[in-house]
Amino acid sequence: MRVDIITIFPDYLSPLELSLVGRARDRGIIDVHLHDLRQWASDVHRTVDDAPYGGGPGMVMRPEPWWAALTEVSESGAADGRRPRIIVPTPVGRPFTQGYAGGLAAEPWLVFCCGRYEGIDARVIEAWADDEISLGDYVLAGGEVATLVMVEAVTRLLPGVVGNAESVADDSFANGLLEPPVYTRPPVWHDREVPAVLRSGDHGAIIRWRREVALRRTAQRRPDLLAGTDPAGTDPAGRVAQ
Amino acid sequence: MRVDIITIFPDYLSPLELSLVGRARDRGIIDVHLHDLRQWASDVHRTVDDAPYGGGPGMVMRPEPWWAALTEVSESGAADGRRPRIIVPTPVGRPFTQGYAGGLAAEPWLVFCCGRYEGIDARVIEAWADDEISLGDYVLAGGEVATLVMVEAVTRLLPGVVGNAESVADDSFANGLLEPPVYTRPPVWHDREVPAVLRSGDHGAIIRWRREVALRRTAQRRPDLLAGTDPAGTDPAGRVAQ
Repeated sequence: MRVDIITIFPDYLSPLELSLVGRARDRGIIDVHLHDLRQWASDVHRTVDDAPYGGGPGMVMRPEPWWAALTEVSESGAADGRRPRIIVPTPVGRPFTQGYAGGLAAEPWLVFCCGRYEGIDARVIEAWADDEISLGDYVLAGGEVATLVMVEAVTRLLPGVVGNAESVADDSFANGLLEPPVYTRPPVWHDREVPAVLRSGDHGAIIRWRREVALRRTAQRRPDLLAGTDPAGTDPAGRVAQ
Repeated sequence: MRVDIITIFPDYLSPLELSLVGRARDRGIIDVHLHDLRQWASDVHRTVDDAPYGGGPGMVMRPEPWWAALTEVSESGAADGRRPRIIVPTPVGRPFTQGYAGGLAAEPWLVFCCGRYEGIDARVIEAWADDEISLGDYVLAGGEVATLVMVEAVTRLLPGVVGNAESVADDSFANGLLEPPVYTRPPVWHDREVPAVLRSGDHGAIIRWRREVALRRTAQRRPDLLAGTDPAGTDPAGRVAQ
């Protein structure tokens, strides 16, 4: 997968050199290109913003540098007939979900456009964006941290990135339930004991306990997720299923 | 505001030196302390994880280093009688929202605990966490990027951080509606024109247009947000209101 990120703060994306995404890059699973939007600004001050039409606080990102950036980045894959999927993180977009991350993981090429200030001139978005996507119902200072989130969530789903594929299949949301709590040694710590069933070696009882706790936790914390869940459902291998 | 972040990837938090959060730190509005969890690991290999009780894929973060870290960090403010609010980003938490960000912005001291692998031993969370918070319905490789999001969203709301307070009051979600599109010069770009009303100078017409477009956009994209909105509501200053 190829990922291009257009931003006025390329340094903000440095976490993509670390941890899971960094390892996926080292192994050639994803290829990340950072672009400083200011290289497409035409004046000596490298201005990328201007006052909003209609008045109001803040500044708006000008269409010219974005148009030039998106034209050049898109054309850079034209030789092999590829077209990127262009994503604008924005609080007015549709919510980012695990299912949407799975869809992006199947794409060969993603371009993320990181807006700042009051946002990018709407004509850029109309003409270029395939998706406007929101991380959640909150407002950030720019699209950079949203891009970090999306790239991390998508990279995790690429084949070969997470060592144990079961670990991804068990994720919260992958099966419609929140995951149950996890414990490791020691068995007692500050008077708090690991639930006996998890130390019993009874595999069937452990699966039932995890399923029950996951259901109870989902009902308490996120009843909205339970619509459509089959509470009795387990797949043929006896694993928690939707 | 004081913010402590406990992680096995302190470098991942380097974006907090940049942009809005970096400037707020330079100006003394927030004071960020990064802690490498491994300094509280007791063995020579600085191990922080172990196999899960009950079996299954992946590893679980051990309680001992977290307990030691949280004890030491919490006690570091004891001299002035302060107690931190301890937050664990996790997909099983309650959803992060703009309202919750506003609540955190009123706290004097936040501690973020960045889990990795299958998560932190549940006894740590039971004993220490004030909140388990989820960024949205998707799974990340660790709590670091979620912490970046939350710190950025909260810092934006601290007095004096965003230059124009109106800009924050107008945010998507702040008034229950998505923001309308924004435009800047030039008036025509690649045959796309800025809506005439925004260039009319008619302030009342501009407010009505923005309100209508915000409502239509919210109805199309996020009808869930419209429950409870008064479609006719404007505040005495004629600004878009909930």
